[in-house]
Amino acid sequence: MDNPAATQAFLSDFASIPDQKILVHGGGKIATQVAEKLGVATQMIDGRRITDAAMLDVVTMVYGGLVNKQLVAQLQARQCNAIGLTGADAGVILARKRPVGTIDYGFAGDIEQVNALQLLSFLNQKLTPIVAPLTVDAQGQILNTNADTMASAIATALAKEGAAVNLVYCFEKKGVLMNPDDDDSVIAAINKEKYATLKAEGIVSKGMIPKLDNAFAALAQGVKEVHIIHARHVTNQVGTRLTL
Amino acid sequence: MDNPAATQAFLSDFASIPDQKILVHGGGKIATQVAEKLGVATQMIDGRRITDAAMLDVVTMVYGGLVNKQLVAQLQARQCNAIGLTGADAGVILARKRPVGTIDYGFAGDIEQVNALQLLSFLNQKLTPIVAPLTVDAQGQILNTNADTMASAIATALAKEGAAVNLVYCFEKKGVLMNPDDDDSVIAAINKEKYATLKAEGIVSKGMIPKLDNAFAALAQGVKEVHIIHARHVTNQVGTRLTL
Repeated sequence: MDNPAATQAFLSDFASIPDQKILVHGGGKIATQVAEKLGVATQMIDGRRITDAAMLDVVTMVYGGLVNKQLVAQLQARQCNAIGLTGADAGVILARKRPVGTIDYGFAGDIEQVNALQLLSFLNQKLTPIVAPLTVDAQGQILNTNADTMASAIATALAKEGAAVNLVYCFEKKGVLMNPDDDDSVIAAINKEKYATLKAEGIVSKGMIPKLDNAFAALAQGVKEVHIIHARHVTNQVGTRLTL
Repeated sequence: MDNPAATQAFLSDFASIPDQKILVHGGGKIATQVAEKLGVATQMIDGRRITDAAMLDVVTMVYGGLVNKQLVAQLQARQCNAIGLTGADAGVILARKRPVGTIDYGFAGDIEQVNALQLLSFLNQKLTPIVAPLTVDAQGQILNTNADTMASAIATALAKEGAAVNLVYCFEKKGVLMNPDDDDSVIAAINKEKYATLKAEGIVSKGMIPKLDNAFAALAQGVKEVHIIHARHVTNQVGTRLTL
């Protein structure tokens, strides 16, 4: 998202995928930049954004507006019939505000329910949902929600309805790395046992753990394939493949 | 939009309308406020916003994100199955950048085509489109677009597909007024001849003329009814009724 040329290339690749597809996007750095310009302080704890009322407006604007609509517009220009959604739109994802524990995350959403039938209906209409990391609770409160978690929850819900789902996490590395300083040290495949070893040995880094936890949870609940890849490999999905 | 309590009341009324419905919204004052905080200067000519690249980002954030998603979330909480759309989403409205004449409006969109079949499909799926005043051109360029014009274009396109369309303009006055200083001087009905007289006599004010021009154009192209009313009368539509 932070590299316009890479985003354009990704969108061309994504548009070319012939299968039914859903894109879940983030936009964290842009939100931080806009927040700064608006004088709203960004506070992160363990990589998670603390979302007070002012920050909620920022992420609603940036995720739901700026980023989502630019992605949709650019996909439309590539003959991909994209439709931007937050969890609120067509009631696709219901969440609840994260309870305040030792940390008060503010307006952060924990997913309660994914309306898989509505998403499948869009897919069957040849629409491509582009999902911003925002959800809503039953009282209409918008909630900031982790994009990786949303992707995993959507994949799982679709799998439960019988869909053959391939969950692909795209980021700026070629996959899960043995050595974080060596971009070519990609681990081609990780199963649950290997994951436990990698965690125990401290090879899997802090930021990767929630992604992998989400990924294995999705596999355990019926998602067929999970890949962690560089965004530029979205068409061939060469990177790290996860298996149970 | 600028009065939270009035907006809540309007949304409750809107949600209660049993017919298939589409809401086209603006959000001009909020965009101006956010632009100011971001240091983006607002320039208006004849009530139209000049949209340079920085302002386009602001309106994409505010119209497509903040305002649209809040409306959708609050309607969902009222059991109205709202879905937020810009012209880009599902390709519902294609526009082109307004040609530069004596005034350069910047990234302003003139509507080329409304995908009425897609909108009717959403309506038939019991979804309620909530449309932000943004469109897209064939190259994926997002364009700022007048909400009144979008409402009229959507109404006309639906009518051409055989739908019985009632186009309702909601604002902060009780209708078209004989005397702008007397909120109770509502003109109950205006036909084309009366409109010509009102314009000639200078009774219809500057800001109302594009709205009425749009409205009469819609009637001429098959829209069944047009009403101009106070937002709080959305259920009974008491205000000014326009007829050919």
